[in-house]
Amino acid sequence: MPASTRDRIIEASTALFMQRGLAGSGLKQIAAESEATIGSLYHWFPGGKDELAAETLRASGAAYQTLVEAVLDAAPDIVTAVSDCFSGAAEALRASGYADACPVATVALEVASSDERLRLVTAEVFESWLRAGTERFEGGGIDPARARELATLLVAGLEGGFLLSRAARDTAPMEAIGRVVTDLVRAEVGRRA
Amino acid sequence: MPASTRDRIIEASTALFMQRGLAGSGLKQIAAESEATIGSLYHWFPGGKDELAAETLRASGAAYQTLVEAVLDAAPDIVTAVSDCFSGAAEALRASGYADACPVATVALEVASSDERLRLVTAEVFESWLRAGTERFEGGGIDPARARELATLLVAGLEGGFLLSRAARDTAPMEAIGRVVTDLVRAEVGRRA
Repeated sequence: MPASTRDRIIEASTALFMQRGLAGSGLKQIAAESEATIGSLYHWFPGGKDELAAETLRASGAAYQTLVEAVLDAAPDIVTAVSDCFSGAAEALRASGYADACPVATVALEVASSDERLRLVTAEVFESWLRAGTERFEGGGIDPARARELATLLVAGLEGGFLLSRAARDTAPMEAIGRVVTDLVRAEVGRRA
Repeated sequence: MPASTRDRIIEASTALFMQRGLAGSGLKQIAAESEATIGSLYHWFPGGKDELAAETLRASGAAYQTLVEAVLDAAPDIVTAVSDCFSGAAEALRASGYADACPVATVALEVASSDERLRLVTAEVFESWLRAGTERFEGGGIDPARARELATLLVAGLEGGFLLSRAARDTAPMEAIGRVVTDLVRAEVGRRA
């Protein structure tokens, strides 16, 4: 089934936000990349760029969460799960020429001090990621407060890894962060075993 | 001594890049905020926005490095040093209404896949930070390879902390990351003592 126009618009804006951020992605360019007219874009998103941005953040944030949860849940234990997250992120960076990274971070930094409505959407997305991560660490036998801290480090480590690895066009930072965070989770699980 | 026009321009563009990113900061706005004319802006930066952006990234990256080094070097040991970095970052966020954060990250994400010249500048800045961090961990008795990994985690943790804390307008993520990274460095130093 071919993607609906609305889906294509969201897909194009996700890719553009990842590559150029919110301010750098014009509606005309989003329309062109999704093979839609500006009229059709306003049909699906009557609120224009603000509404499209909010929907893109929600949709791409949810899709990214599903992807990371699949990696975490496929692993036999939480230590392997964390290691797989970082090696998967490094592989995605390499395979995409360092373009395929977090779909939310660039926009989140752009709007944090300048667009309260979109800031709240990015906060919701990150909170949902942190909850999903916290659940996995709790499932690995870690108590709730520490599980939340480790989930925060996992998300921050991936985000920091995307930033440093994209800037350097080198997966070394993502891999280094992955090794240290994995060691930490291994020690944490060992202490509780 | 009042700041020179060039300094005021760099200062204004640093603040605007931090608040709105590169694409969201127009030359007119930078000129207005620095009380300079567009003509004067082109006098100091004949290459226009590209040259100004490169100089802003270099200058703000170096200033930020000096600030973090001062925090690290004031502490009696590397464990306290790392803890102080995160509590200092949390305090700066709180005091500035979540505006005072990394001056390089937003632009680095915007340009990573779209402006090779500026990407290289952001890579230089981060590499300089990683070297400075690596030296401090080595000074704390950690071997060079692990010191580099810990420095990478420190920078990634701060960057991820800025992202999550600015989005949530809450220092809890920065503080959580700080606790976990500090515990890890304490264990690492203990193992080698």
